[in-house]
Amino acid sequence: MTTFSMYTASIPVFKQILNSLHAILEKAEAHAAEKKIDPNALLQFRLFPDMLPFTRQIQIACDFAKGAAARLGGLEVPSYEDSEMTFAELKARIVKTLAYIDSVPQASIEGSEERAITTGSGEKTKHFTGQTYLFHYAFPHFFFHATTAYDILRHNGLDIGKKNFIGTY
Amino acid sequence: MTTFSMYTASIPVFKQILNSLHAILEKAEAHAAEKKIDPNALLQFRLFPDMLPFTRQIQIACDFAKGAAARLGGLEVPSYEDSEMTFAELKARIVKTLAYIDSVPQASIEGSEERAITTGSGEKTKHFTGQTYLFHYAFPHFFFHATTAYDILRHNGLDIGKKNFIGTY
Repeated sequence: MTTFSMYTASIPVFKQILNSLHAILEKAEAHAAEKKIDPNALLQFRLFPDMLPFTRQIQIACDFAKGAAARLGGLEVPSYEDSEMTFAELKARIVKTLAYIDSVPQASIEGSEERAITTGSGEKTKHFTGQTYLFHYAFPHFFFHATTAYDILRHNGLDIGKKNFIGTY
Repeated sequence: MTTFSMYTASIPVFKQILNSLHAILEKAEAHAAEKKIDPNALLQFRLFPDMLPFTRQIQIACDFAKGAAARLGGLEVPSYEDSEMTFAELKARIVKTLAYIDSVPQASIEGSEERAITTGSGEKTKHFTGQTYLFHYAFPHFFFHATTAYDILRHNGLDIGKKNFIGTY
């Protein structure tokens, strides 16, 4: 039986949705192959010209998950290059992100609700407590990019539904 | 100073995003008026023919917020008719939802992490603890619909950005 804690409120939620995105990427990759769609038609698709393309949505969702795990755990945020060009590479980034957030010791995240957390630098510096950061910043940004990735594929006809996004937990 | 609790992990987060959606609806309404766009072109827009239209996305986001507030608080979930046809009516639904979730006593939500929560009926019945329900079910569904509402307006050229979604907290 888990108890209510910053750990149970954070890592398993990121894992749930990252696993969903991984499965959705599998479906998108198979769909593109089957329909002979240029993968870039999906990977580089934007819902509007000044929005970020699909690939960036996945990269940034991963970044909010690893950033939250690291900051709540009091660790330095690992830096990932944004070099993914294929579905396979995006899946690998999710796998790497999942491995990282699983590697952050539960004990380092427990009790982080009042930990002072700083993001950005210069004029963009933001100060949070652990709980404000997780619930008002990391979650909204993470779900925003994860859902937008889903919406891009859905808009392009991929046969997925909300169940694929919610996944298993 | 707030402490970490089921209340601080839930109600203020729903309020943050519902307030953002309210402000975004204001912008969409003004945009439609200014550009002489039929409001239904936005209100009934779907990102794909078998997806739900904008109006339903807002209604359902409200439902997950009020459902979570009620269930975590051990109260009966209030039922709202899904009769909104205009931006003004959708804004009113958000205002009503905000008033409701604010009316749930903080003390009734505190300590709800292990409360047994049931959703659905018949074959669709799901059993949760309070924390599993909030983090793995209510939040993902809520953010899914809130973000999709944003994405629909963004896709239709409304001049908003992620800041409008994240809002203030």
